Amino acid sequence: MQNDKSKILEKYFPFWEKLSDEQQQRLCINSVIGKYKKGANIHGGDGSCTGAIIVMKGSLRAYLLSENGREVTLYRFQKEEVCMLSASCVIPSINFDVVIDAEEDSEILIICGNAYAETAKENIYAENFALDTAVKLFSDVVWVMQQTMFMSLDKRIAVFLWNETSKTNSTTVYITHEQLARYINSAREAVTRMLKYFASEGIVALFRGGIKILDFGKLEKLAL
Amino acid sequence: MQNDKSKILEKYFPFWEKLSDEQQQRLCINSVIGKYKKGANIHGGDGSCTGAIIVMKGSLRAYLLSENGREVTLYRFQKEEVCMLSASCVIPSINFDVVIDAEEDSEILIICGNAYAETAKENIYAENFALDTAVKLFSDVVWVMQQTMFMSLDKRIAVFLWNETSKTNSTTVYITHEQLARYINSAREAVTRMLKYFASEGIVALFRGGIKILDFGKLEKLAL
Repeated sequence: MQNDKSKILEKYFPFWEKLSDEQQQRLCINSVIGKYKKGANIHGGDGSCTGAIIVMKGSLRAYLLSENGREVTLYRFQKEEVCMLSASCVIPSINFDVVIDAEEDSEILIICGNAYAETAKENIYAENFALDTAVKLFSDVVWVMQQTMFMSLDKRIAVFLWNETSKTNSTTVYITHEQLARYINSAREAVTRMLKYFASEGIVALFRGGIKILDFGKLEKLAL
Repeated sequence: MQNDKSKILEKYFPFWEKLSDEQQQRLCINSVIGKYKKGANIHGGDGSCTGAIIVMKGSLRAYLLSENGREVTLYRFQKEEVCMLSASCVIPSINFDVVIDAEEDSEILIICGNAYAETAKENIYAENFALDTAVKLFSDVVWVMQQTMFMSLDKRIAVFLWNETSKTNSTTVYITHEQLARYINSAREAVTRMLKYFASEGIVALFRGGIKILDFGKLEKLAL
C-alpha cells in the first residue's frame, strides 16, 4: 500500500527525484487514497487545508458558493490532474474558499497539506511545482470570468451546445436545464427561457433530459 | 544609469544574489526605466509580452476589456509592487489579454520578457519568484469575481464608500459616478441610479465631483 502511493507520487510529481528519502517518505506516509461517490463533497468552504489532490479516476468540480447559494464553477479537474486549490497551507496566497465535489464516482490521492507545506519549505522544486500548478488555473479562472461577465447568455448556451456536439459528434446533447445552467454559470430559469426561444427559432428541439440541434447553421452564427 | 537599474533590481528581486554575474547583467541591460502620464497605456490587449514591471512611482491598473468596451478591473498595482501579468513569455500559462494603464503619473522599470524568461529557465529561484508573484494575484482576482457576481450593487457601493471614508477619516468621498462605477466594475448609469436612491433615503448627499455621507449607521447596515 505504501509502495502503491509512492508509485503514484513518483508519477505525478516531477520533482520526486529531487527529494531526500526522508521527504519522499513523509509525503507517502501523509497520503491517503480515497473513493468518493458522484456528488460527494471533498473539500470545502470552511477555510481548512485539505491538501494537494491527485485525480486518479473520475473528475472533480471546484466552485465558488455565494451566501445565497449561487455557484460559479471555476474549474473541472479531470483524471491525471493535480489540484492545489485545496492546499491553502501550501500556498498561503490562495486564500479564497473554494468547494470541491466529486462530479463522477472518483478515486483520488490526497497529500496532507501540512506535510506538503513542510516539504515545499525545505525544497524549492516542490514549492515550484505547487506554484506552477496553481498558476495554470489562473487563466482558466479569468476565462470563466470573461465568459460570465462579458458574454451574453444566448452566446454562452450556443457555444456550449456547439462544443458538446462537436466533441461527441452527435446532434443531441443529453443534459437537463439545471445541469446546463451550472456548466455555464447561469440560473436554471434564465437557461430554460433562452432554450425555449432557441426552440421557437427552430434552432433546437427540447425533450425531457436533452436538447436536439435542428439548425447547425443558426447555432454557429450565435456561437461565433 | 546601468548602476541605478542594478540597485532597483537588487531591491525588488529577492533572488538577485542567487543569479550569476552574467544573469544579473542580462537583466540590467534588458531593463528600461519609463515615465508614463496618467491614463497612458503601458501593456496591452494585443497578446504581446511586455515583461515584468516594477512600479517605482504612481500606480497601474490592470483590467480586462470586452469586445464592446466593458472593463473589469482585476488589480491595481501600487508603488513598490511587481507585475507579472504583462509577462506571458515568462509564465506561458498566464495567457489572457490584460490591459495595463498608468492610473496616475507613474515611473516604472520594465524588464524585457525574453531576458527574464531566459533567466527563469536557467535559475529556479527566478522562476519561483515569477510564479509566486503571479499566484499572489489569483486570490485578488477571485475576490473581484465574487464581488461582481455575488454581491448586489447597493452593497458594493456601500462597502466602497465605507472603506474610503474609513481610510481618509472623512465624511466625504471625492469621486465621479463614472470613476466609482469603474472601481466597483459596474455601469455608470446603474451607479447613478443607486446613488440617487441612497440620497432619497438620506444616506448620502450628492454634489458635483463627490458624495457626502449623512448617515453612517444606515451605510454600515448596507455594507455588512
